[in-house]
Amino acid sequence: MAPPRYIQLPEGLKPAGVPGSELLAYERSKASFDSKAMAEYIHGKDFLELQERLVNLLSNDPIFDKTSDHYYGRADKFRRAMLKDKRLAQLAAEHNWSQTENAMAEKLADLPGPMGLHKSMFLTTLYNQGSDEQRKVFYEPASKYQIIGCYAQTELGHGSNVQGIETTATWVEESQEWEIHSPTLTASKWWIGGLGRTADHAVVMAQLIIKNKSYGPHPFVVPIRDVKTREMLPGRTIGDIGPKAGYNTTDNGFMLFEHVRIPHFNLLARFSKVEPETGKYLPPPNAKLAYGTLTWVRANIVRDASTVLMRAVTVAIRYCAVRRQFADRDAPKFGQDGKPLETQVLDYTMVQIRLFPILAQAFAFHYTSRFMFELYEQNQANIESGDLSLLADTHASSSGLKSLTTLYASDAIEVCRKACGGHGYSMASGLPDFYANYLPNATWEGDSYMLSQQCTRYLFKTMRAIKSGRGKVDKNITTDYMIRYLDNKSEKASIQFSGDLYDPLFFMRAFGHRAAYLTEQTLALRDDLKRSWNSLLVELFRCSKAHSQYLLVRNFGMAILKDEKLNSQPALRQIVQKIFLLWACHTMEAESADFLASGYITGQQFHLLGSKVQEIMAELRPNAVALVDAFAVPDYLLNSALGRSDGNVYEALFDFALREPINSAKWNVDIEDLETTDFDSDLPRAKL
Amino acid sequence: MAPPRYIQLPEGLKPAGVPGSELLAYERSKASFDSKAMAEYIHGKDFLELQERLVNLLSNDPIFDKTSDHYYGRADKFRRAMLKDKRLAQLAAEHNWSQTENAMAEKLADLPGPMGLHKSMFLTTLYNQGSDEQRKVFYEPASKYQIIGCYAQTELGHGSNVQGIETTATWVEESQEWEIHSPTLTASKWWIGGLGRTADHAVVMAQLIIKNKSYGPHPFVVPIRDVKTREMLPGRTIGDIGPKAGYNTTDNGFMLFEHVRIPHFNLLARFSKVEPETGKYLPPPNAKLAYGTLTWVRANIVRDASTVLMRAVTVAIRYCAVRRQFADRDAPKFGQDGKPLETQVLDYTMVQIRLFPILAQAFAFHYTSRFMFELYEQNQANIESGDLSLLADTHASSSGLKSLTTLYASDAIEVCRKACGGHGYSMASGLPDFYANYLPNATWEGDSYMLSQQCTRYLFKTMRAIKSGRGKVDKNITTDYMIRYLDNKSEKASIQFSGDLYDPLFFMRAFGHRAAYLTEQTLALRDDLKRSWNSLLVELFRCSKAHSQYLLVRNFGMAILKDEKLNSQPALRQIVQKIFLLWACHTMEAESADFLASGYITGQQFHLLGSKVQEIMAELRPNAVALVDAFAVPDYLLNSALGRSDGNVYEALFDFALREPINSAKWNVDIEDLETTDFDSDLPRAKL
Repeated sequence: MAPPRYIQLPEGLKPAGVPGSELLAYERSKASFDSKAMAEYIHGKDFLELQERLVNLLSNDPIFDKTSDHYYGRADKFRRAMLKDKRLAQLAAEHNWSQTENAMAEKLADLPGPMGLHKSMFLTTLYNQGSDEQRKVFYEPASKYQIIGCYAQTELGHGSNVQGIETTATWVEESQEWEIHSPTLTASKWWIGGLGRTADHAVVMAQLIIKNKSYGPHPFVVPIRDVKTREMLPGRTIGDIGPKAGYNTTDNGFMLFEHVRIPHFNLLARFSKVEPETGKYLPPPNAKLAYGTLTWVRANIVRDASTVLMRAVTVAIRYCAVRRQFADRDAPKFGQDGKPLETQVLDYTMVQIRLFPILAQAFAFHYTSRFMFELYEQNQANIESGDLSLLADTHASSSGLKSLTTLYASDAIEVCRKACGGHGYSMASGLPDFYANYLPNATWEGDSYMLSQQCTRYLFKTMRAIKSGRGKVDKNITTDYMIRYLDNKSEKASIQFSGDLYDPLFFMRAFGHRAAYLTEQTLALRDDLKRSWNSLLVELFRCSKAHSQYLLVRNFGMAILKDEKLNSQPALRQIVQKIFLLWACHTMEAESADFLASGYITGQQFHLLGSKVQEIMAELRPNAVALVDAFAVPDYLLNSALGRSDGNVYEALFDFALREPINSAKWNVDIEDLETTDFDSDLPRAKL
Repeated sequence: MAPPRYIQLPEGLKPAGVPGSELLAYERSKASFDSKAMAEYIHGKDFLELQERLVNLLSNDPIFDKTSDHYYGRADKFRRAMLKDKRLAQLAAEHNWSQTENAMAEKLADLPGPMGLHKSMFLTTLYNQGSDEQRKVFYEPASKYQIIGCYAQTELGHGSNVQGIETTATWVEESQEWEIHSPTLTASKWWIGGLGRTADHAVVMAQLIIKNKSYGPHPFVVPIRDVKTREMLPGRTIGDIGPKAGYNTTDNGFMLFEHVRIPHFNLLARFSKVEPETGKYLPPPNAKLAYGTLTWVRANIVRDASTVLMRAVTVAIRYCAVRRQFADRDAPKFGQDGKPLETQVLDYTMVQIRLFPILAQAFAFHYTSRFMFELYEQNQANIESGDLSLLADTHASSSGLKSLTTLYASDAIEVCRKACGGHGYSMASGLPDFYANYLPNATWEGDSYMLSQQCTRYLFKTMRAIKSGRGKVDKNITTDYMIRYLDNKSEKASIQFSGDLYDPLFFMRAFGHRAAYLTEQTLALRDDLKRSWNSLLVELFRCSKAHSQYLLVRNFGMAILKDEKLNSQPALRQIVQKIFLLWACHTMEAESADFLASGYITGQQFHLLGSKVQEIMAELRPNAVALVDAFAVPDYLLNSALGRSDGNVYEALFDFALREPINSAKWNVDIEDLETTDFDSDLPRAKL
């Protein structure tokens, strides 16, 4: 529940000048398109309807009230998240929610809870990797919350390198059991969501060892707490790992095992199996097939990165339209009332150059996540019919894109926060928490710096294959641009006038040429100069980035050229085309060292890009607020005094301040008196 | 006090492989120089001795114990900071601390407290702007903590633009009083440190109005709370503004006035005065003289930025030397014991390229802050003798450098945090809090994006003056490089072999040429094409950045060439020279679009820079740990499980986890039961 207002304000005070609500209304009246039609084009009708329905449901339930979160300490944060997860489970059962509805409700409630990993990785693993019988014994009760689980892979000393984990599961022939053990301190499971205080079962990844031979990491189901008493079971040492930058509403945990025995049955055996009588290990059929799921997970991450940008830039653009600061040096100094006229912050080009490319990037990520889902479907269909030709390309691109988009999105939230000036620093802006909770995306599911190597490894392989004989290579997006490059190595940018930039194909060609050029250059260092892999990591990262940026340019460009839904709505097409142009010019300018150094563009052409960016920013300015309206991020999700759709920013900042609990007490400032801090307080005190 | 360990670990467990302490010892044994000698060269003996003395004092006083901070909620965080500020005040009195000792103790205690602004802005303003009598009435009791104050300038609707503040101080002729009033909601004072719950007096900046005429913002001393009862005085509405990304240990506050009367005496009148009998306003003599203090404040900010980099990169480099992950693709796959050999993360070039330039930047900022203090001294001496010629140049450079260094330093903390992988996200790393508390530096004392305009405005003025007649311009650093450029506009980089890069003068010339080139180009847009100021903000920012980078290159380069202390110690000189080379090449590569587009360097030369960066990183690698040792950041200040000088990272992470208070309770996961969350807890509960 919202805390009371501890202080009364003098009556009748209003913000100076034009109210925020009027400023936003004025902004909206200037739009050259219908923001509702744009929202439908971006998200689809179903999404918008569902979102509205769930916002109504959640925002009227006191358990999902967000007003108090920022005042809590860790224990209360965790309490609230536990309640929220329980209530979500009740609602899901009550309304028989689909996966889409569940995911949307989670996103809107926006509080990573102790059962998050139960609902995702625990259930998914039990289902996908469990035999039919294991599904019955583990998956079914878990899906009804009769057991609560977590997914225990990462260890204190081992993150991205799964092969290096130390926890062992040793086959005990006599009793036909597994013995789970942590041989060292660094073998402790660590970071495991829901493990700290909540889960009673864990899927534990451990090195499977039979007769002193290791078969690598496999998943085991291990009971860890008594389902009724919630006491730790013998041989387990479990706890919460302590506070983090974000995610303090989740009990990320650690776990050590001392020779814990579990039945043979508890090795998840849909793929690999061990014969209980003989102890014989039966390996899985095709390990590469798991890449399909990975691609799906990463397509989701890219889509999330797009919605992250939408949310952050909505806050910043709305607030910068309401906030006024300084008069333009060229503007008249005083208005009719004799007071200085201050400029909307959004009119400053230095603010635009930070925010508009983020707005445009949201579109770019959107089109590429759509493309990845299509590619995933196509790939799955191919696999069904035994065709694995798309697998490697899809997997490599998804690695590169995951790396690029998560790094970009986390940085972008901070850029938006800083563009809000001082008030961006207040928790009332909604951005500090949002940033802190989004950050792990750049690390989990493959650290973004590590992961890029997988992409470049594939680029190398492909480039080598093409060079050694084109007939044998599969035709796909990557081979297409590489072959094009190899046939036109000395290609130069053809643009001469700024109007030449209106051709999306120019950017697609340019970014394809650059990606292939960097790959060829770096490959030569590896193959010809025999440079070590490690000495090339910086260049490898650059290749993966160039490839991923090519995909973003290509998918966005293709939408401009071929998306029928877009092209049938002139008002939408016109603005999206501008957004593409801004984004493509800005990205090319940001990466211009590559294009300049290779001689692909000249200094003259470089300056054309910068001027075009300025020109398009001015054209986009009147549509900025309508564009973020079209992102359709509900106020309930924004949870931001600065980004609210009604523009009543200053009233909301005051409301936030008046409810701060430390305002309910008087404090003792007498420096001689170290005993008393607050005179008259019933504020909670930590017992530490 | 440190909370207890709530969970017992199994006995005798150790981290796998070589212990962190041995790895760091091995790293230290490889150094090519004495890190103690380097520490003395960087900081000086006095600094190091004082630091050691104060670390001993504070780290043994339970009030300055830092182990519990991360578990607290807002109220407890504030309580602890209040205690800390009181104890610091006691110690300062007891030991009769100098300003240096006070500042060092504050820095080491590292907890922005409710009396921070009392000690800085409140006391400084009373002293600098108060008449002799006002010093007696206000400054003296304040310096003894008999009254506690804050500095109330920023308003809800007005940050960087001080001229735009709305609070009024109107002269009441009849009673010879000032009436302080907040006409609107946005006029509310906001963000004021120490105002929320602590201060009983405020220096309030308000528009001074006499007979309907406004004379702009002036400082007034306003009593706001009863010194004894701590109750708000009539006509004031005061409170804390609520939680923020960082600084939650400080009560940043808001304040509204309803026609509050204060005596004539309370306008701080060292410079501007008002005659009480006539109401006649007497303006200050020379407003520009205030620039001196500003320069001093900013020199401090640049020095702080340097120490911020030192602290962050110490954590990251030590941890990356202890952390091992994956084997190099070219390395042998297995060691003698049959286990895979994992590489120290610091050996990965992708990690080096993120951390080593930060290490180098710390040196660059260090030399420039030293230069700024010298310039400040020289400038003050000049002013004493009536020579104002250095004032404008010093002020402009300090604006540009404040802007550049604070933006860079806040980004760098995040880069270091991310380089620590998953564990960087834990509060135990010390980096999330450090980042959150440092952030305001990019906003306060002039928003870094706004401030850059002041620098470029001066660059324009100087360039115009030189072009219209050189004889009349003062000789200084800026005119020097501009004249050099105007005489050699078509200059090109002379480097041909990678060895040519060893000349610091090459970089100094190159960055000077670029700064002047950008200024000339941008000035032409303004003066010849008559572009509006606002449409040029992006270019203006770029000019300020280029000028500031030139200063950094120059000051670092001059140290290599001329610093006798350095040049007399060959082991130190040799390594610092490498650091300069890495930093200069890396910075030039990062900014290469400018150099390439202007034709100053070719694509070939561009590639020389990148190769040299890789080469020097490999040479610096064995010295990396010794270099951060030389930064001499005490463990007590680092407060980081990852950065500790003994390398016992994993034990420290466990210690942090075991003390997490939510580990003291059992939690109810029954989804039907929304009433009970924790079964058996005496954890504090928020009353909201």
